[in-house]
Amino acid sequence: MKVLIPNTIELPLTADVDAVVYDTSADIPDEHRDAEMLVVWGNSASWLQNAAGSLPRLRLVQALASGADAVLNAGFGSEVRICSGRSLHDGPVAEHALALILSAVRRIDRLRDAQREHRWDDAFNQEQAASATRAHHTLDGAHVTIWGFGSIASTLAPLLAALGAQVEGIARTAGHRAGFEVHADADAPALLAQTDVLVSILPATDATADLFDAEVFGALKRGAVFVNVGRGATVDETALIDALESGQLRAAAIDVAKAEPLPASDPLWDTPNLLLTPHVAGNRPVGAADLVDENIARLRAGDELVNQVHP
Amino acid sequence: MKVLIPNTIELPLTADVDAVVYDTSADIPDEHRDAEMLVVWGNSASWLQNAAGSLPRLRLVQALASGADAVLNAGFGSEVRICSGRSLHDGPVAEHALALILSAVRRIDRLRDAQREHRWDDAFNQEQAASATRAHHTLDGAHVTIWGFGSIASTLAPLLAALGAQVEGIARTAGHRAGFEVHADADAPALLAQTDVLVSILPATDATADLFDAEVFGALKRGAVFVNVGRGATVDETALIDALESGQLRAAAIDVAKAEPLPASDPLWDTPNLLLTPHVAGNRPVGAADLVDENIARLRAGDELVNQVHP
Ligand SMILES: NC(=O)c1ccc[n+]([C@@H]2O[C@H](COP(=O)([O-])OP(=O)(O)OC[C@H]3O[C@@H](n4cnc5c(N)ncnc54)[C@H](OP(=O)(O)O)[C@@H]3O)[C@@H](O)[C@H]2O)c1
Ligand SMILES: NC(=O)c1ccc[n+]([C@@H]2O[C@H](COP(=O)([O-])OP(=O)(O)OC[C@H]3O[C@@H](n4cnc5c(N)ncnc54)[C@H](OP(=O)(O)O)[C@@H]3O)[C@@H](O)[C@H]2O)c1
Repeated sequence: MKVLIPNTIELPLTADVDAVVYDTSADIPDEHRDAEMLVVWGNSASWLQNAAGSLPRLRLVQALASGADAVLNAGFGSEVRICSGRSLHDGPVAEHALALILSAVRRIDRLRDAQREHRWDDAFNQEQAASATRAHHTLDGAHVTIWGFGSIASTLAPLLAALGAQVEGIARTAGHRAGFEVHADADAPALLAQTDVLVSILPATDATADLFDAEVFGALKRGAVFVNVGRGATVDETALIDALESGQLRAAAIDVAKAEPLPASDPLWDTPNLLLTPHVAGNRPVGAADLVDENIARLRAGDELVNQVHP
Repeated sequence: MKVLIPNTIELPLTADVDAVVYDTSADIPDEHRDAEMLVVWGNSASWLQNAAGSLPRLRLVQALASGADAVLNAGFGSEVRICSGRSLHDGPVAEHALALILSAVRRIDRLRDAQREHRWDDAFNQEQAASATRAHHTLDGAHVTIWGFGSIASTLAPLLAALGAQVEGIARTAGHRAGFEVHADADAPALLAQTDVLVSILPATDATADLFDAEVFGALKRGAVFVNVGRGATVDETALIDALESGQLRAAAIDVAKAEPLPASDPLWDTPNLLLTPHVAGNRPVGAADLVDENIARLRAGDELVNQVHP
């Protein structure tokens, strides 16, 4: 079986296959158009569209990204199976999400700005000591809601709980996950009204497009914090800017934006109390070779694949 | 028993005492100079020196700060017992230390600076994906050494371990603490040679003055990270600046400095790859009233006091 491996990642496979490394910035060479499996990592949308029409024997596309939205939208034949890199990013994304949450709550952005002005920010100290604002400056006792309570959230939630946060989740179906209470979206408004920190780890789908809008931000406790490590497509960015400018949101931190890279003229860059990182939460899958090996074995054995998202 | 309570903190005591709130910016009124116990929080060094000579019936000074260095140096009579606020700051300081460690490892300072320049930092993404520099961008698998492995470290270490770090400690005596291996200072050089992230939670004492000097920074793995939430007095700041400028340290984050507030002309403000916060890790004791109540009860019963540091 011929497996096409992208040159964007080292992938030391143990499976006994004809593994061919390809260049993600060039067309697939004619002699490799007989591949049965394609691994993708960092491929552009146009490359994927091109590949969708060039691999007649293709049976499986294995994405290494957690969100396989780009592959799903590329136009591969309906019989080609698509698997995501779900779980490979749990540790890295949870780590960056925690860095953003702590930065927003402990206001590392504000303190960094003060540092650059050579200013010892005494007001910060007073605010965190004052009884009216004390709770803003810590996760201890804070109500944290994770919207999109899947694989990454299951790694993040215990870290937040260890810091004293009360963590609950929202997903499509209610239930207990990883020891945390998860509510269905319909129950979101009641939950938001008591939420101090709202964290999004939602995928980009039709149902999640612009989900975080003026209504959702308005439903939060006044002065809540918003953190997004899911996808920029889920956020109405004008509503986010408004919520920060009005103080409805006290602070926000986002790793993703609708337009990436964000154009230099975008108003998000200078939005007050907003920390923005350039989609760096993931981008470092852990255990990718094991997942590819596993799905090769399962494909051969005719078993159910890991992380299949299509058909 | 008359107990003097500072006006810098709300302290809802349950003990049956004559609790008198005093102003930390004024002299103690004559009618309260018969107090037997003094609680201090945010009092200046000169106020403490003054108090040391004005309270003839004083039996106990209860500091709420974790480091009682200021009280110990104020000149209270040798028979006056001094207790620290050890443990009240474990959660808050561990939380801020984690924020600084993650900020230094995930380079929130650098990404915030790029944001202010409207710059999408693609180089960050490349560095965290490249095999030579990948390990720099995560705590997962990083060797973290906590120098000063006491009360705060016992709260911080499990959080770092949950993120995949290999945590060890240094203290005056070796042994296992809170499930982590702690080495005596004499073994520091060997440990530093394998340390990716060095965290200081040391108190200011004669023995720790300028402990973090060119020799210690030089003994670390090249490109290590240094974080200090202990005391500024423990750091030779010229050596810290040199280590950051030469790249021996890849990044650092400090919450404390020798001079606080740091003068606007200090070179630390603009040191490359250094994040500086204005001594905000603690300053929000948790459970202070319980500690004061407990020591009042013990003082009355003649029992051993909690956190006694003098005599
Ligand atoms: N910033 C980055 O660098 C980065 C890196 C990796 C991943 N991500 C993003 O993070 C996303 C989540 O990753 P994951 O591995 O945790 O995925 P996952 O395990 O599939 O979890 C996604 C969660 O979202 C929920 N969800 C989906 N649509 C929903 C809707 N319309 N309403 C409410 N909940 C909905 C799902 O609910 P059910 O369980 O009920 O179906 C599930 O709990 C990815 O899709 C990707 O977009 C970002
Ligand atoms: N940035 C802030 O806002 C903030 C807030 C609170 C506290 N702090 C600082 O943090 C310090 C530690 O607090 P803590 O509550 O964790 O105190 P702690 O429980 O007394 O722990 C201090 C640790 O330092 C070790 N140590 C002391 N002198 C040493 C030396 N010469 N060599 C090696 N190890 C030495 C002790 O070792 P042994 O156990 O072997 O004696 C102990 O493990 C405080 O003293 C204070 O300066 C800062």
